[in-house]
Amino acid sequence: MTAGLPRTGVGVDVHAFAPEDDPRELWLAGLLWPGERGLAGHSDADVAAHAAADALFSAAGIGDLGSHFGTAQPEWAGASGVTLLAEAARRVRDAGFEIGNVAIQVVGNRPRVGTRRAEGEAALSEAAGAPVTLSATTTDGLGLTGRGEGVAAIATALVVARGS
Amino acid sequence: MTAGLPRTGVGVDVHAFAPEDDPRELWLAGLLWPGERGLAGHSDADVAAHAAADALFSAAGIGDLGSHFGTAQPEWAGASGVTLLAEAARRVRDAGFEIGNVAIQVVGNRPRVGTRRAEGEAALSEAAGAPVTLSATTTDGLGLTGRGEGVAAIATALVVARGS
Amino acid sequence: MTAGLPRTGVGVDVHAFAPEDDPRELWLAGLLWPGERGLAGHSDADVAAHAAADALFSAAGIGDLGSHFGTAQPEWAGASGVTLLAEAARRVRDAGFEIGNVAIQVVGNRPRVGTRRAEGEAALSEAAGAPVTLSATTTDGLGLTGRGEGVAAIATALVVARGS
Repeated sequence: MTAGLPRTGVGVDVHAFAPEDDPRELWLAGLLWPGERGLAGHSDADVAAHAAADALFSAAGIGDLGSHFGTAQPEWAGASGVTLLAEAARRVRDAGFEIGNVAIQVVGNRPRVGTRRAEGEAALSEAAGAPVTLSATTTDGLGLTGRGEGVAAIATALVVARGS
Repeated sequence: MTAGLPRTGVGVDVHAFAPEDDPRELWLAGLLWPGERGLAGHSDADVAAHAAADALFSAAGIGDLGSHFGTAQPEWAGASGVTLLAEAARRVRDAGFEIGNVAIQVVGNRPRVGTRRAEGEAALSEAAGAPVTLSATTTDGLGLTGRGEGVAAIATALVVARGS
Repeated sequence: MTAGLPRTGVGVDVHAFAPEDDPRELWLAGLLWPGERGLAGHSDADVAAHAAADALFSAAGIGDLGSHFGTAQPEWAGASGVTLLAEAARRVRDAGFEIGNVAIQVVGNRPRVGTRRAEGEAALSEAAGAPVTLSATTTDGLGLTGRGEGVAAIATALVVARGS
C-alpha cells in the first residue's frame, strides 16, 4: 500500500555566463554575488532556485517552470528565482501536497558557493517554506561547467499528499 | 530504526539524434512524435522510459538496464521503452518492493515535451503501474543537449519494501 | 505535518582520466580495478564514493565534501573514497539523522561496473553502514563521459531525523 508514501522529484537547470561585453549581476541561490560574473537569460538565471522549483513541480506532478512561468505567462517574465520558487511551493501546496525538503547541488567553478552556504539556504528555505539545503561541486575541468561556460544545478525534492 | 523507510533511486540516460542520412522515428516518454528527428540506438532510444526503469532498479538495488536487458538477454533487444519500464516495474515488485512514484525530467531542445505532458505521463504511469511524472528543461545552448547532439533524461524513484 | 518525513539529497561528482604519461590506478566504488585507466585528482578520485558522500551531506543539510574534507582540512587530503564516505555517514548520524539508503549511478564508458556490482555495493554499504546500491550507464558517445574524458557519478540519498 503506497497511499501514505512521500513522492520524490528531480530538477536540473543550466545557464550560460553572460558575454564579457554584456555583463550582468550574478544571482545564485537567492543571493547577489558582487564581483562575480553573471549568468545570462531572460530571467535572473538563478539556476539553484530554478532547479529547486522544478524538483517541487516534478515531485507533485504538476508540470515545470516552462508550463507555469513560460512565455505563455508573461506576467512572470521578470520574476526573480526566489519569487518563482515561492510561487512554485505555493502551487504545490495548492495541489494538495506538503513539502518535506528540497536539496540542491550547484555544479560549477564559480562562485564559491560554500562561502555563503548558510545565507543561501536561509534565502531559499524562506522562499519554499520548507528546508532547502545547498551544496556545491566541480567537474575537474570537464564538460560545460568545467570549461567555465556556465553553471548547472541539480535538485531533488520530497513531498507528501496532505492527509496521507 | 530504518526498516520502514522508503528507498530512493536515480537513473540517467542519453541518446544521440540519428544521423540525417539514416533517419528514425522519435519515441519519447512512450509516445511517437511525428515530424520530430529520432534518436539513435539499438533500442527505441526512449530516454525517458529508460531513465525511469533505471531509477526503479537503482532504488530496489537489483541492477540496471544493462544487467537486465543487455546483450546477454537478446530476447529484449527490440523491446520498446515502455515495455522495458513495465518489465522493470514487475521485477522490482518481484524483488519485494512497492513502487511509490517515478519522476522524470527530459533535458533537450526538441521535442517540446510540455505539449504532450499529460499523454506521456499516462503512457509511462500505465507501464509502471504507479504515478510517473514528466517535466522538461533546456540547457541554454550548452553541453550535449544544448548543442542539439542528443536528448538526456534524469529520473528519481521511490520504492518501499513490502510489509515494512 | 512534515516532522516525520524522510529527507532526500543529491550528489554529483566528475573526475578526468589521468593522462597517459602519468598513469594512476583506478579506484571506483571502493574497488581497485586492475588494468583500467585511472582517474586524476588529489584524492583517489572515486566518483561513486564521493557522489554518495555528497548525497548524504545534501540530505542532512550539513555541507559537502569541500566543506568537510577540503583544503582547510589537510588531514583528509590522502583519504580514500570509502574512508570519506564512512566519515560522512558518521557525521550525518552525529547531526541527528538515520540513513535510509544511498543509490549511485556511474556514468561512463569504462570500467564495466556491472561486472563487479555486488562487490562494489558491499564495499560502499559497509562504509556507509546502510544499503548503497550501484548501477551504471553510458551516454551514447556524447558529452564528457561519452568522449571518454572522464567518469561521472550521480547519487541520491534518503535520511530521516532520529526520533521522528
